[in-house]
Amino acid sequence: MKMIKKSVLALLMGVGLGLGAASSAVAQQSLEDVMKARGLTQKDLLAAAKTYTPTGGRDEYLAFSSGGQSGHVIVYGVPSMRILKYIAVFTPEPWQGYGFDDESKAVLAQGNIDGKQILMGDTHHPAFSETEGEYNGKYLFINDKANPRIAVIDLHDFETKQIVANPFFKSAHGGAFVTPNTEYIMDAAQYAAPYGDGFVPVEEFNAKYRGGLTYWKFDMKAGKIKPEDSFTFEMPPYSQDLSDAGKKASAGWGFTNSFCSERYVGGIERGRPPFEAGCSQKDTDFLHVTNWKKAAELVAAGKVKKVNGSYLITMDQAVKEGLLYLIPEPKSPHGVDVSPDGTHIIVSGKLDSHAWVYSWEKIQKAINDKKFEGKDPYGIPIIAMKDALHTQVQVGLGPLHTQYDAKECVVYTSIYVDSMVTKWNYCEGKVLDQLHIHYNIGHLVAMEGDSVSPDGKYLVSLNKLAIDRFNPVGPLHPQNHQLIDISGDKMQLLYDMPLPLGEPHYVVAIKADKLKPVIRYKSGWDSRADKRSPWKTRAGREKVVREGNTVHVYGTLIRSHITPEIIEVEEGDTVSIHLTNLERAQDETHGFAMFGQNVNLSVEPGKTVSYTFKADKAGVYPYYCTEFCSALHLEMQGYLLVKPKGYKATDVVMEEGQKYTEADYKKQVKTNIDTQAVIDSVVKFITSHNYKDFPTVVALVEDATEQLGFAEEWKKKAEASAAKGDFQNATLQAGQWWQYQVKTADLGLRAKTYLEENGAKKVSK
Amino acid sequence: MKMIKKSVLALLMGVGLGLGAASSAVAQQSLEDVMKARGLTQKDLLAAAKTYTPTGGRDEYLAFSSGGQSGHVIVYGVPSMRILKYIAVFTPEPWQGYGFDDESKAVLAQGNIDGKQILMGDTHHPAFSETEGEYNGKYLFINDKANPRIAVIDLHDFETKQIVANPFFKSAHGGAFVTPNTEYIMDAAQYAAPYGDGFVPVEEFNAKYRGGLTYWKFDMKAGKIKPEDSFTFEMPPYSQDLSDAGKKASAGWGFTNSFCSERYVGGIERGRPPFEAGCSQKDTDFLHVTNWKKAAELVAAGKVKKVNGSYLITMDQAVKEGLLYLIPEPKSPHGVDVSPDGTHIIVSGKLDSHAWVYSWEKIQKAINDKKFEGKDPYGIPIIAMKDALHTQVQVGLGPLHTQYDAKECVVYTSIYVDSMVTKWNYCEGKVLDQLHIHYNIGHLVAMEGDSVSPDGKYLVSLNKLAIDRFNPVGPLHPQNHQLIDISGDKMQLLYDMPLPLGEPHYVVAIKADKLKPVIRYKSGWDSRADKRSPWKTRAGREKVVREGNTVHVYGTLIRSHITPEIIEVEEGDTVSIHLTNLERAQDETHGFAMFGQNVNLSVEPGKTVSYTFKADKAGVYPYYCTEFCSALHLEMQGYLLVKPKGYKATDVVMEEGQKYTEADYKKQVKTNIDTQAVIDSVVKFITSHNYKDFPTVVALVEDATEQLGFAEEWKKKAEASAAKGDFQNATLQAGQWWQYQVKTADLGLRAKTYLEENGAKKVSK
Repeated sequence: MKMIKKSVLALLMGVGLGLGAASSAVAQQSLEDVMKARGLTQKDLLAAAKTYTPTGGRDEYLAFSSGGQSGHVIVYGVPSMRILKYIAVFTPEPWQGYGFDDESKAVLAQGNIDGKQILMGDTHHPAFSETEGEYNGKYLFINDKANPRIAVIDLHDFETKQIVANPFFKSAHGGAFVTPNTEYIMDAAQYAAPYGDGFVPVEEFNAKYRGGLTYWKFDMKAGKIKPEDSFTFEMPPYSQDLSDAGKKASAGWGFTNSFCSERYVGGIERGRPPFEAGCSQKDTDFLHVTNWKKAAELVAAGKVKKVNGSYLITMDQAVKEGLLYLIPEPKSPHGVDVSPDGTHIIVSGKLDSHAWVYSWEKIQKAINDKKFEGKDPYGIPIIAMKDALHTQVQVGLGPLHTQYDAKECVVYTSIYVDSMVTKWNYCEGKVLDQLHIHYNIGHLVAMEGDSVSPDGKYLVSLNKLAIDRFNPVGPLHPQNHQLIDISGDKMQLLYDMPLPLGEPHYVVAIKADKLKPVIRYKSGWDSRADKRSPWKTRAGREKVVREGNTVHVYGTLIRSHITPEIIEVEEGDTVSIHLTNLERAQDETHGFAMFGQNVNLSVEPGKTVSYTFKADKAGVYPYYCTEFCSALHLEMQGYLLVKPKGYKATDVVMEEGQKYTEADYKKQVKTNIDTQAVIDSVVKFITSHNYKDFPTVVALVEDATEQLGFAEEWKKKAEASAAKGDFQNATLQAGQWWQYQVKTADLGLRAKTYLEENGAKKVSK
Repeated sequence: MKMIKKSVLALLMGVGLGLGAASSAVAQQSLEDVMKARGLTQKDLLAAAKTYTPTGGRDEYLAFSSGGQSGHVIVYGVPSMRILKYIAVFTPEPWQGYGFDDESKAVLAQGNIDGKQILMGDTHHPAFSETEGEYNGKYLFINDKANPRIAVIDLHDFETKQIVANPFFKSAHGGAFVTPNTEYIMDAAQYAAPYGDGFVPVEEFNAKYRGGLTYWKFDMKAGKIKPEDSFTFEMPPYSQDLSDAGKKASAGWGFTNSFCSERYVGGIERGRPPFEAGCSQKDTDFLHVTNWKKAAELVAAGKVKKVNGSYLITMDQAVKEGLLYLIPEPKSPHGVDVSPDGTHIIVSGKLDSHAWVYSWEKIQKAINDKKFEGKDPYGIPIIAMKDALHTQVQVGLGPLHTQYDAKECVVYTSIYVDSMVTKWNYCEGKVLDQLHIHYNIGHLVAMEGDSVSPDGKYLVSLNKLAIDRFNPVGPLHPQNHQLIDISGDKMQLLYDMPLPLGEPHYVVAIKADKLKPVIRYKSGWDSRADKRSPWKTRAGREKVVREGNTVHVYGTLIRSHITPEIIEVEEGDTVSIHLTNLERAQDETHGFAMFGQNVNLSVEPGKTVSYTFKADKAGVYPYYCTEFCSALHLEMQGYLLVKPKGYKATDVVMEEGQKYTEADYKKQVKTNIDTQAVIDSVVKFITSHNYKDFPTVVALVEDATEQLGFAEEWKKKAEASAAKGDFQNATLQAGQWWQYQVKTADLGLRAKTYLEENGAKKVSK
């Protein structure tokens, strides 16, 4: 029988296997053969070349998509169209530990409605934080329509940090849209409802049901929405929908569209035609124009009253102060999109075939001249369409949402009924190109499309329920995001990307190099509160502290053990386990799950997380690391022992399953010495090359050095036990010494391979 | 101002826009330009051609991946590496309504542990149901390690139908693996624990902690695991790990490996070396060989006793009956993989550098000859390594899991520490090729790799925590599945696919054409119970039924309204909303969310789902459809009105927001007549072509015909109201008539476009 540890050594020394031989593998088939076999055209091949990203390649843009009713935010790369992350926002998600650890539970609890836990969200429109109208890469905001809330995601670690619930609304589809310096985040109500608690008969809809628009105050430095400084416009029950903030020429103003300005209340079960009939009867709805800058000044001047703790600008006050105006817009519109220079606003209605282009100059003139065609039933002045419109352009049946190109005057509008994208010129009112897509297009997104300087280049068409684009996967179909090349005169379809979870509504895309996420946390970090955790624990300082019936476990995680490995508590105790990941290596995330306790924690390097639960039943509860973190990952385990109340310990002494002798110890030590020689040779290789020029290798070397330090510690322990003649422990400790050597060798080998593959050079000393 | 409805008509008639002009768009850049700009090599281009799948293309294989601690199963296509679906299994997921509707809550509740809700899972190893060792495409099984459970996913609709919890274990990493005709699903314990409830000191580990292996009985016809017919092998506390069922030559037997056969108990906090040291000290662990066929016969013959309601084969009985044997295996192994013909078994250990190939013939001979080298401390016979081994092959440092090729004797082993895949010949014991991957490879999967006739072609390497393969997305990295072409002599890396959610452990891949999922349910279907729902509701039969304090709402969904639109209940009532999707069109899934009630339902065509909650607070609760289902989707809304107890209705009468006159009615009717003319012209186009040759178009035409029927109904209502002089209702009803016409036209246009794009021919009559 072969000596196993010996063979490991042989491999460590690079004996025998001709590693790297595969790298000279040559393409055995011609491109033509492959194209023929897979039925690809030249056009397909060009599209493939425009999207295919070889291993290690980077995408030029990162797209952040709402996850619809999954409650998440989805991050994918453009042009590779590979999905990189689902960020949990409104819905608990165990892989991320979101909604399982105490810290993220506190974030989710901020979104409780009437004290009730809400464990889902219907996310719709993400928006980046902006500085002078440019995406600054710091934060992402996303709304929940079902329960009117806004969440703040920190792009330095891609985690959800805050959720705020609207103080007035019972629905909010029309968020999030930011003002040019992220002073405010706009969020409009959708389905009108009475403000505050309590029942109001639907017969009193006109008089007591209200829409509205909240401007959430954002503090960029703190990275937090400040509800106490936010304000809401009371609005008529018109089903306010999407918004866009004015920019440059129109900075300081906001634009919000609406549908069902008929104020129709359905009731098909009582013989009334349904909402859909009554809400689409008029030819026009209302574009709402709000002066947020002046409103903010009134708030600052103490001229706006708080209702239930929140600033509310009533319709009367808004009219009196000149803060709110209405303009007719095409019926049942969806998008309202301000041009990069702020001079024009495009609105299109799903039941109209035109996109309407408004002129901000004209609107401003009408406001300044107080030239109105009348008032709505709530006294709000209405600007006549002819006094606001620049032009109307026939773009197709069911136009929905518009994105701006880098090219002047060029825009793209999604056309729902015709299932196409129309490229047109809004200055001249001329259609330039049309491209069929598959099918049911909703929003679309161009690169940095909502900023003051859109990049153009790519467009993504967000199509719903792809019935025939992919292999079938049951009655619930994936969505389909189609990537379109818009760099030339004609649009070119490049790629179909299925969405495997959720129904995205809107996407924003940012230059990837604007994002510089951290790769690890400061040691002992509470990532949700973004500060040092009071429960942080350093190596060697692990402890269990009882406070009355609560047992606090200050634990640590490092490959490949959890400290403590045995936790003993009594039935009825509240157990609070605080775990700090001691690792510095960026891929050494550890997890934590326990039988019967409904928990998974994700503990990235540096992070401290907590899990608190009641040990309500005596028993044995295995726990373990849930991230595959090293070769000995499965052995990263422990037991929670819950003893019955008043349990008296027995006198049973632990019997070792396996006994070790001096010979075992010596054999292990011999292996360790041989292993060290291998490590030394790898170290020699690395240090004889310009490894410091490779940050990846520097990180590996730092990690390896740390692992080797641990090996040294256990070497000392082993030698001390051996000196006392305790060969049972000496052997096990020498085994642990070897474990750290293997981890060191693993890292060293990885570093060596990296240097070889990336053309490192020998350095002379 | 332009007449809006007129312009819709113009478009419907194809006036003006030159639809389809874009289809002649030509590639404006050469392939060489693109390759240069994106830094692609010829090898990259070949890989792109092998993976890129143009719009509407299909993948040859579907891969089903565990989602790790996300608790889901992930479905993706090979070779496009596009993720098609996350199937919710152990974790609630609102997009699918899983864990929100009553029906799926009942499935999740089957997995309760000690009566406690578990809202996560740590999924590891999926397996397809098999017939004679071939994947039959009917069911997928997946285990939860954290709380030992197995779930059954029905591949006819990609939904989770059953969860069973292990009656003995407190951990189970080693599932799911099926026997050749899916008689049983194997699931092995991992962390030993006392069977049953209650506390047992860890000092009594050897005597009272147990591992084990459950054979879950599966009924293919019912699609259900039968816990009452399943049985479990009691096993020593050896941390049993993965299994594989014997096949062909070895059919009737099962193979299960283990680690920590040292039976070491850690306790680093009390000065003991950690588990990782004591669990990896010996050079070998034990491969467990079980005779399930004979065990099943004993069960059938009434010779196995039930413990707590479940059959348990004790170690004594297993030894006595010749059901269980041990064979030394390389230390800390992960995979155990039986060759397609059942003659060989390959095991590799993460701390060894060899893969060990066992000969079933030799093992069988030793068993028949009763030739053992001894017994373990629990009396289980041990077969000597030399009496079982075919060969040992040095494959690399940290070998983990092996997959079989279609080519005879060729296998692929994932090599963890060296981060590579080794291709070797297990008959001759010879390494053939090696390929570096990035990094931390765990399992790998070849196409139909676990069946009796593997397809080869592609291999997917499941790599953990991709620190440098993709754009960074914060401290928690995506996993990386690398697609490898194994059709030639040399392996070729084709594609890096990030996993955006969860940490997959194992994947199985099936020929896509073996799956024929349904596209809709029978009307009124409870998909979780797979039978007609008692709450099904037909169109026109919607009703609200009060039973004491419970209000049952029998509702329906159809584009674009929910019936009922107003639901009135009293504070304190239990409300049970039952919704049937009346649609037949396959992309007409509707959703349902309500303010403040923590609910999203996904109601695919035909499905009936229920949501039961307590209306514990008086108020107004908007609800709406959460799937973008038509142009009037946002108007698919309603209100739950919860009246205070003892509320007396006021005499306020609904005041209409918008009043309509005879002129409004006539205008609407004129529009409708014009619209009908357009529909007629589209119908003429379709029926004058061979549309019946296109199933997609036939489905669209059926749907359009149904919509037009609805239009006809509302036409009659409108005319009746007009005849009575009720122009308010007549106008709204005519509006609804038009809504159905627009839906008809939408479908008709889509059908027409499809025919144009797919070369339909004119038919002569």
